[in-house]
Amino acid sequence: MRADGAPANRTVVFRGFSDRLDMPNSLKIITDHRSEKIAQCAGDQRAEACWYFPKTREQFRLLGTIATVTNQESSEEGGGRERVTTWQNLSDGAQLQFAWPQPGDRRAEDENAFTPEPPNPKAPPETFVLLYLIVKQVDWLNLRGDPQDRIIYHQNADGWEEQSVNP
Amino acid sequence: MRADGAPANRTVVFRGFSDRLDMPNSLKIITDHRSEKIAQCAGDQRAEACWYFPKTREQFRLLGTIATVTNQESSEEGGGRERVTTWQNLSDGAQLQFAWPQPGDRRAEDENAFTPEPPNPKAPPETFVLLYLIVKQVDWLNLRGDPQDRIIYHQNADGWEEQSVNP
Repeated sequence: MRADGAPANRTVVFRGFSDRLDMPNSLKIITDHRSEKIAQCAGDQRAEACWYFPKTREQFRLLGTIATVTNQESSEEGGGRERVTTWQNLSDGAQLQFAWPQPGDRRAEDENAFTPEPPNPKAPPETFVLLYLIVKQVDWLNLRGDPQDRIIYHQNADGWEEQSVNP
Repeated sequence: MRADGAPANRTVVFRGFSDRLDMPNSLKIITDHRSEKIAQCAGDQRAEACWYFPKTREQFRLLGTIATVTNQESSEEGGGRERVTTWQNLSDGAQLQFAWPQPGDRRAEDENAFTPEPPNPKAPPETFVLLYLIVKQVDWLNLRGDPQDRIIYHQNADGWEEQSVNP
């Protein structure tokens, strides 16, 4: 959500599911600490990812909240370790972007700004932030069904409940 | 936006740009009057569409507001005519969905509910709603650039202004 309350929608890369036992079903996303995402998540943690698979014609709507793991977090429980391993699994090119000039600022005139010294491939820089999308509800739509199938999965205190609904 | 303020994110089909002279740059979307989209747009018209083109590796983020054209609107200026022509361009299968049982309700047990009498192919039923996404800002990201290119286009009283920014 933007500061003025307008929704913000963007494409992100799915970096796999969290390995943490206390974060089941959580999707990993990465971002730069200087990006707009950070302020937008700080104001309102609620988010929904929409994922459409063209080959199977399935849509997943994943509703939940975003948790952030910044360089302030070093404990294993807090995700500090998973932040490091996620960093180490990035390509050189993806790592380099975290040393680029301030995202969203007027374009840097010196193109050398985009070929900085490569960051340490083992230890994430301050700008590197790990995000979790902690999913609480899934709305699954299968366009291949005839008629289409749609099931809403909702997490409550006892686990997941599911409800087949009209598409 | 949901009634509780959480964002709502979904895949929609792009039905082309509006032909209306007063709606330049507006994308057409269709929906069922009984769907959650309608209540969500009524509460807060602001929306952002995110469109990623895998072949060209471009992302377009289209920020604006949603306008609805329901069966209450018959005037040409209000979009009544474009609602009718958009309906007439739908496939039989797409038209039939507007006669299906209430979306989101517990799945109808009688599967015949999904094979109702086909609606009139010339005149849209009450359930058929035309939506416009009226775009005010475009955030264009081109991952093919080296480094990536990103330009923000913003509509103001004089027209569109553009600003090249860091990706």
